[in-house]
Amino acid sequence: MLTQWFWFVPAAALLALVFAWFFFKQMMRSSEGTERMATIAAHVRRGAMAYLKQQYKVVTLVFIALTLFFAFLAYGMHVQNPWVPFAFLTGGFFSGLAGFFGMKTATYASARAANAARNSLNQGLRIAFRSGAVMGLVVVGLALLDISIWFWVLNAVYPAAENTHNLIIITTTMLTFGMGASTQALFARVGGGIYTKAADVGADLVGKVEAGIPEDDPRNPATIADNVGDNVGDVAGMGADLYESYAGSILATAALGAAAFLAHDVVMQFKAVIAPMLIGAIGTVLSILGIYVVRTKEGASQKELMAALNRGVNLSSLLIIVLSAGVIHLLGLPNPWGIWFSIVVGLLTGIVIGKSTEYYTSSSFKPTRLIAENAKTGAATVIISGLGMGMLSTAIPVMSIVIGTMLAFLSATGFDVANLNQNMGMGLYGIGIAAVGMLSTLGITLATDAYGPIADNAGGNAEMSGLGPEVRKRTDALDSLGNTTAATGKGFAIGSAALTALALLASYVEELRIGLDRIGVTQLVFDAQTAVDVKTASLVDFMAYYNVTLMNPKVLMGVFIGSMMAFLFCGLTMNAVGRAAGHMVDEVRRQFREIKGILEGKAEPDYARCVAISTKGAQRAMMVPSLLAIIAPIATGIVFGVPGVMGLLVGCLASGFVLAVFMANSGGAWDNAKKYIEEGNLGGKGSDAHKAAVTGDTVGDPFKDTSGPSLNILIKLMTMVSIVMAGLTVTYCMM
Amino acid sequence: MLTQWFWFVPAAALLALVFAWFFFKQMMRSSEGTERMATIAAHVRRGAMAYLKQQYKVVTLVFIALTLFFAFLAYGMHVQNPWVPFAFLTGGFFSGLAGFFGMKTATYASARAANAARNSLNQGLRIAFRSGAVMGLVVVGLALLDISIWFWVLNAVYPAAENTHNLIIITTTMLTFGMGASTQALFARVGGGIYTKAADVGADLVGKVEAGIPEDDPRNPATIADNVGDNVGDVAGMGADLYESYAGSILATAALGAAAFLAHDVVMQFKAVIAPMLIGAIGTVLSILGIYVVRTKEGASQKELMAALNRGVNLSSLLIIVLSAGVIHLLGLPNPWGIWFSIVVGLLTGIVIGKSTEYYTSSSFKPTRLIAENAKTGAATVIISGLGMGMLSTAIPVMSIVIGTMLAFLSATGFDVANLNQNMGMGLYGIGIAAVGMLSTLGITLATDAYGPIADNAGGNAEMSGLGPEVRKRTDALDSLGNTTAATGKGFAIGSAALTALALLASYVEELRIGLDRIGVTQLVFDAQTAVDVKTASLVDFMAYYNVTLMNPKVLMGVFIGSMMAFLFCGLTMNAVGRAAGHMVDEVRRQFREIKGILEGKAEPDYARCVAISTKGAQRAMMVPSLLAIIAPIATGIVFGVPGVMGLLVGCLASGFVLAVFMANSGGAWDNAKKYIEEGNLGGKGSDAHKAAVTGDTVGDPFKDTSGPSLNILIKLMTMVSIVMAGLTVTYCMM
Repeated sequence: MLTQWFWFVPAAALLALVFAWFFFKQMMRSSEGTERMATIAAHVRRGAMAYLKQQYKVVTLVFIALTLFFAFLAYGMHVQNPWVPFAFLTGGFFSGLAGFFGMKTATYASARAANAARNSLNQGLRIAFRSGAVMGLVVVGLALLDISIWFWVLNAVYPAAENTHNLIIITTTMLTFGMGASTQALFARVGGGIYTKAADVGADLVGKVEAGIPEDDPRNPATIADNVGDNVGDVAGMGADLYESYAGSILATAALGAAAFLAHDVVMQFKAVIAPMLIGAIGTVLSILGIYVVRTKEGASQKELMAALNRGVNLSSLLIIVLSAGVIHLLGLPNPWGIWFSIVVGLLTGIVIGKSTEYYTSSSFKPTRLIAENAKTGAATVIISGLGMGMLSTAIPVMSIVIGTMLAFLSATGFDVANLNQNMGMGLYGIGIAAVGMLSTLGITLATDAYGPIADNAGGNAEMSGLGPEVRKRTDALDSLGNTTAATGKGFAIGSAALTALALLASYVEELRIGLDRIGVTQLVFDAQTAVDVKTASLVDFMAYYNVTLMNPKVLMGVFIGSMMAFLFCGLTMNAVGRAAGHMVDEVRRQFREIKGILEGKAEPDYARCVAISTKGAQRAMMVPSLLAIIAPIATGIVFGVPGVMGLLVGCLASGFVLAVFMANSGGAWDNAKKYIEEGNLGGKGSDAHKAAVTGDTVGDPFKDTSGPSLNILIKLMTMVSIVMAGLTVTYCMM
Repeated sequence: MLTQWFWFVPAAALLALVFAWFFFKQMMRSSEGTERMATIAAHVRRGAMAYLKQQYKVVTLVFIALTLFFAFLAYGMHVQNPWVPFAFLTGGFFSGLAGFFGMKTATYASARAANAARNSLNQGLRIAFRSGAVMGLVVVGLALLDISIWFWVLNAVYPAAENTHNLIIITTTMLTFGMGASTQALFARVGGGIYTKAADVGADLVGKVEAGIPEDDPRNPATIADNVGDNVGDVAGMGADLYESYAGSILATAALGAAAFLAHDVVMQFKAVIAPMLIGAIGTVLSILGIYVVRTKEGASQKELMAALNRGVNLSSLLIIVLSAGVIHLLGLPNPWGIWFSIVVGLLTGIVIGKSTEYYTSSSFKPTRLIAENAKTGAATVIISGLGMGMLSTAIPVMSIVIGTMLAFLSATGFDVANLNQNMGMGLYGIGIAAVGMLSTLGITLATDAYGPIADNAGGNAEMSGLGPEVRKRTDALDSLGNTTAATGKGFAIGSAALTALALLASYVEELRIGLDRIGVTQLVFDAQTAVDVKTASLVDFMAYYNVTLMNPKVLMGVFIGSMMAFLFCGLTMNAVGRAAGHMVDEVRRQFREIKGILEGKAEPDYARCVAISTKGAQRAMMVPSLLAIIAPIATGIVFGVPGVMGLLVGCLASGFVLAVFMANSGGAWDNAKKYIEEGNLGGKGSDAHKAAVTGDTVGDPFKDTSGPSLNILIKLMTMVSIVMAGLTVTYCMM
């Protein structure tokens, strides 16, 4: 039963966790530097941990409530698999754990990275990058471990070898843990995102713009909150987010594999299910290899550092292309080169989206320079051109997804264009495995992504400890180095979200099959003459039965609601940032006014109050948007049934994807346009153009770090909720 | 054959045109005031006419090219009805004519309204409102006339009495003239929108913010361009836009009526086709009645004026509810009360959207006040909260459309929820007729909408002629009075766009039927056993045959592209405004710098150069987005076929609708937040909060007057193009 292959997955997971532990210990051995540096780091660490504690307290209550609800559905109403509540809980727990470990590492690493940067750029990179690697490996390690354990447990309960339906039950039940992870991730992204941007906007508006003191200046009362925010938003939030993306893509593809090979023998089905897990496992080993390759000689230039990072990522990516071909051939899946090409397409799509992100957001290229140029005519034109450019920048990513999806789909079907309907299962499996390919080397790509905020915090620590400009310059160099890799990382995150969500639509239909089966519906009856067995009905049969066509008004209304959900969600989070930032501005202004000697550096600001404002703002505001994501698909299902839910998911995906790209790119471009001016262009720091650009950057903050990245999770969470709730929908629907 | 009923339509059209002529003559008899007033009005009029001439020159070339293309499709490739090129041309011509007449009236009215306002508020209202009425009546009159002529001609060629297929051909061919109108309207909205906002932003940024001179000050070189812009954007653009909406809703519903009653006898089908035309005709007569009711005693307060406007609109709306019940019963349509209720639902939906627009954009309510509050912490927080609020404000309109559409659909089917598939034709007819109901009294609602820009221009004239603050105050009062009615008007425009576009999806399928018939496909073959005649196949059959389900990747890719199109389009237009405004700023700064004595009022600024900059910016930038709207559906059809096109339309509709509401409401709220501060709140004029609010208003300019309103047209134009090109799609599709 090929179980020997499967064991490679938990083995790779443990390997990743061991290396993460090892890198963590290695980092902890280095010095935190001066006493002041250690004190500041401790301040930030305590603030971050306090926030996370508060956050997890609230989220735990939400999880308890939802778990009870699922338990009621499973045990009281019998519309759900009995394992669902437990799978949901573990998904949330592990996702939170990934964020917790990542943040713990980051908060210990910042002073150490700053201290290492006192010696050289290279040593700073080493500490920061290895700490980022801890996060990368923890995320993939925990995800693969969780997947392995659940697969093992459920396989014992519903033996895959018995019949092809058991793997359907196993894989769709496991999606519930993806839902748990998504729920946790959404809270982490939204809460952390509001926290960090309220602090950032507040600190910048009064500190930089009004008082004219530099970023991270200890005289600014919001500066500790700002640095705490980097950790809870950019580190813990991102960790939970990518745990969710990574696990989600593997789980979705496993479920699609089970469905696509429903008519085959159980062995082939089993292979299709473990293929994405194996690719993830191999990618993890390759990531560790890649991390070791990232090293340069002492005194390396920034360009050489970049080359070192690229070497690591490229090596892992190239090897995964080669080795995944081997895995698929060894497994003996049908049309192996076709499936392999889907993986390659996935990787390429990610790279194209990443490059396009870089083009639209880096100040080395025309778009961001144009936005900077517009700063000369004031804040309004900076905003208009940033919004316009962000909207334009959606074209390449959307077209990449369109072309990538079609290629991945067609390739997995052997380019059998004439029989799309018959090959739909295989095609969707191709889309799923493309997403897995995109994220397979997450261990290292996340390392190159996560070290950015660590370097940023190291810079903050250096500034507040008064280490002098040369250290700050080095940490800034590291930070800006991370921007490019982060752009690619974002491309992979959003690209995989789109592909995963598309593929998950098929899992929704599979769950309908299980739901109907559970309530005793054995046939899809079309008319007196025609009926199809629920157990063997095709995706096309289900579409016809539920009339999920674009002429069904329920589908169309679902699409409208879905599209609106994306905007509503962003509106809620944007307003939350605006409101909390407003309070922060008032508080910082009050402290500047009331605490004598604060601006001369003679009196200590009241950092704690600013931390409290951010915390309160975030905790209060994260509930509504997050719960909305859970309630909307359930309510739509009850009112508009299956067609409404599928419309909702497609509407939210299409609108949300484009909106996410727009917001991320506008935000990134404003940020870099400001930095471009700060480098001395167009009048440089302190000029009117600079002030206008700072306004742009401030508007961009919630765009790129709160609302934009949360959309990825929103899209998938709504899909997962729909899948888990499919049983409820088919049992109780009004129309 | 009930033709006696039909003649009521051209009669109402001519009546509307006669009254329009009468109101125009009446207005022309009043005095233009001082010589300076007449001179300035002549300046603006010449500028506006010069722009329109240039605009029509360019658009004519586009129309010639497109007409030749359609002629080739019709006569060369035989994939299209031979009348298509002519219908297309007339639609464009009449839409342009409506804009031309509206603008001509507005440019003659501005000085006269200003002069009347010297006497009293009431006299100012009379002139401005009656001039607005000219535009309202011209739009509905020309639309009904055009519809009548084409119906008459095509009925002579394909006699409706012969068989039920002729009316299908007639009504779908007539949709082509809707496409012509949409094409013209898109150019008018985009070109006019870019023109007006480039001038407005440029004038405000340098004049108001930098030089600190008031709006419409003659020392500002961009002021004439700004006033010209109000005419070409808000008047000519809006005229072409609403001509398109009005004609589109009637034509779509006629086509749906022909399709829904395909299986009935020809008489019933004929009645269903003329029902929307008759409702439009009655609404037109009622509009004229309503216009006459709008009169107040001398010395009326602003509240009384508002009441007078409302009286006119409410009377027309109430009477149309009563009389449409009569029409439907007299025609003897089946389920008359159900169809009538659809009309009522349409009207109510429009009102709810309008009220929600008012709530989110009027400074009497919390949202706009909150945005104004945020001005205290600077431009960035104004922008963030405006964007956030705009996104939130999409919820009510979307839910109104969702509920309204479902109710209109179900009501027309007699709430036969169990047989949605069988009743789909009737349900869609219900959606279409709801849109017709919404727009039936356009004659008067447009009058209350169009008089706003006339009052605005009157204010400009008063300012530039130095008439003193009391006149300006009166024109401002008229202008702000118009804001509320304009909010409702916008609700009707966008609501009807959504309903029309939804209903037009069915027309697309009807056109497929004709296209297949034309290339000799007589049966939809499902498999060896099952086939359905093309001529009698139901909508559901077509959906099944082309697999237009949400699991078809072609559909999903279409949805993605459609969603992206809305953003791309806005990005292009936003950037165009930003670019042209930048040039305007540079030019105004240059004139302030180089022309000595300009700010002391001793030297005349070079108005013409600013006019030229706006014209060039608009003409250059309108081509790409407009042509994109025509090319995208054709290209998608060729690559992804019917499923791709339908996905594209739904994606663009869902995303575009939400985006349009978001942009219109953010823009409106920023505008009024600024005005709220200017009224003396939160520090009043000249305070830092005011400066921040001006930045918000400037960003909002292209939101609410360029990109946002163009989206309505984009959505419908893409749908119309798809319908007209359906023959091409079924004949030549790659996949």
